[in-house]
Amino acid sequence: MSELRKDPVIGRWVIISTERAKRPSDLKVEPARPRGGFCPLCPGNEDKTPPEVFSIADERSGGRGWAVRVVPNKFPALSIEGSLQKRAEGMYDIMNGVGAHEVIIETPDHAATFSSMPVAAITNILLTFKNRLTALKQDSRLHYISVFKNCGEAAGATLEHPHSQLIALPVIPRRVLEKLDGAQAYFNYKRNCVFCDIINQETADGRRLVVSNDHFIAFEPFAPRFPFETHILPRAHLAAFEETPAELMSALAGVMSTVFKKLNAALGFPPFNFMLHTAPFNKDVGEFYHWHLEIIPRLTKVAGFEWGSGFYINPTPPEQAAQYLRDIESGR
Amino acid sequence: MSELRKDPVIGRWVIISTERAKRPSDLKVEPARPRGGFCPLCPGNEDKTPPEVFSIADERSGGRGWAVRVVPNKFPALSIEGSLQKRAEGMYDIMNGVGAHEVIIETPDHAATFSSMPVAAITNILLTFKNRLTALKQDSRLHYISVFKNCGEAAGATLEHPHSQLIALPVIPRRVLEKLDGAQAYFNYKRNCVFCDIINQETADGRRLVVSNDHFIAFEPFAPRFPFETHILPRAHLAAFEETPAELMSALAGVMSTVFKKLNAALGFPPFNFMLHTAPFNKDVGEFYHWHLEIIPRLTKVAGFEWGSGFYINPTPPEQAAQYLRDIESGR
Repeated sequence: MSELRKDPVIGRWVIISTERAKRPSDLKVEPARPRGGFCPLCPGNEDKTPPEVFSIADERSGGRGWAVRVVPNKFPALSIEGSLQKRAEGMYDIMNGVGAHEVIIETPDHAATFSSMPVAAITNILLTFKNRLTALKQDSRLHYISVFKNCGEAAGATLEHPHSQLIALPVIPRRVLEKLDGAQAYFNYKRNCVFCDIINQETADGRRLVVSNDHFIAFEPFAPRFPFETHILPRAHLAAFEETPAELMSALAGVMSTVFKKLNAALGFPPFNFMLHTAPFNKDVGEFYHWHLEIIPRLTKVAGFEWGSGFYINPTPPEQAAQYLRDIESGR
Repeated sequence: MSELRKDPVIGRWVIISTERAKRPSDLKVEPARPRGGFCPLCPGNEDKTPPEVFSIADERSGGRGWAVRVVPNKFPALSIEGSLQKRAEGMYDIMNGVGAHEVIIETPDHAATFSSMPVAAITNILLTFKNRLTALKQDSRLHYISVFKNCGEAAGATLEHPHSQLIALPVIPRRVLEKLDGAQAYFNYKRNCVFCDIINQETADGRRLVVSNDHFIAFEPFAPRFPFETHILPRAHLAAFEETPAELMSALAGVMSTVFKKLNAALGFPPFNFMLHTAPFNKDVGEFYHWHLEIIPRLTKVAGFEWGSGFYINPTPPEQAAQYLRDIESGR
């Protein structure tokens, strides 16, 4: 059983995952994985993953195959069995590593990308996120779910087949608390949602806009940590991703498709991460929080200054990045 | 002139450094730098750097050469000229990128490492940090100095020659505020310095200790973000690094030398970062803060989960890492 440990100074929790314990020789830099080898996420190899917890049938195959498939991570950072058992060790706090760690296999097509996939395929992935968030929310031990994607080795991916992941946590992570606190303070002062105000200012200003439609907006944030960091938000004030109406998912998928076509054209299919920021469970944040998707192409290296300060040096002004992306014809 | 921009949600500041503005084609992954090429930091090439702001003479050369040399960064993230000019852009805050960005050339020897350098050479580097912190503290526009080292390409270094850097900032960074707030809350509750209490618990427990002497202690922290993350603290309660007596620097250099001998033996000269956490200027934190040095070997990749949550998955329990490091004979 792995452990969650809390840093006594800044309150940041860490997962100590003893089941993945590594000796120094395991940590040395590994060579790039050979391409074209065996893929446990490809159709036909379903018995190589843990049993699936959710899937969407592939309509094109007459319902015989799958379009999206969700399985527990074979080497989970947290495990769904057990109780939290909070305890202290002298001045330190520990709790058991209870939670969930799932892999969302986004498509049967090993070589697909968000710019090559049909919008309908991206819609299925988003409906899957909504389904898993809704299902895991029933577990009262869980307080937050982080949905994210690592694409490319430099972005931390260990498998090449298109997939995203979710980690359900028994505590609200520090970065999420920070966002909640910031949004609540803004609301207390202005009686407005800070994200709604950002959407209004970005729409009126226009210099940082990348693409938008009736329901969603994609823009380069005013203070981005990384070059070409791109945020996508629903125009409607919605705190929890899973409460977004299913019929809006294709509009979101359309914006995502365009954003990735532009990013991939501009940067040559960069490694990237995306992170879904959504409301925690069991906490009333509906008035002041607003879900958002952050996309980070991994172009610059994070080094000592960023680790030590939480400050980021970004060599590309967001207005320039947005202009560049707007000028790219995305084929829509 | 670059800009500092504040994220309106969580209050994190970002440097938008327009003078280093990059187009997408500049951001693609560069090939590894050729070894053995021209090095602007080597002796004889002093005219290839901006004029030095500090140096320590090399006693072995009879005072003709230098042992340590400090120069402004040729491509600074912040510039020392100008006023802050805080202003707003709608709901956003901006200020000019005023500050300092210096390179500490640690040794004339291009191939030196912290495990090969004599302890006296490391002592000179530490005395240089003390000198620069003391000098820059006089500038009332500056509120915090981040001293850090990026070693190896995977750790963000762009030059091979042994060097560290400092960035002096006109605001206190968020991660530092977080540490200060955590330490102050602990002090308000317990009337003790949280770092002094950590030193006491780690000394009594012993499982996470790496090495110590009369004045300094090195250990794996209880909740480390990364495998083999190692912290070094002075046993005496000292908030500001620059107030550490000069005569203690060789004791600190001795502990650093041993730690790097052990890390390099265990992990095969891994890329690493270190970050000095010290008291901000113009703020009375002496009662509750305590400077510390964080060393992070760069063995694991930070990916979407860590970016989205501020949670870290660490595959190596610190007790195992410390045991492994203690068992290595460091040649002292």
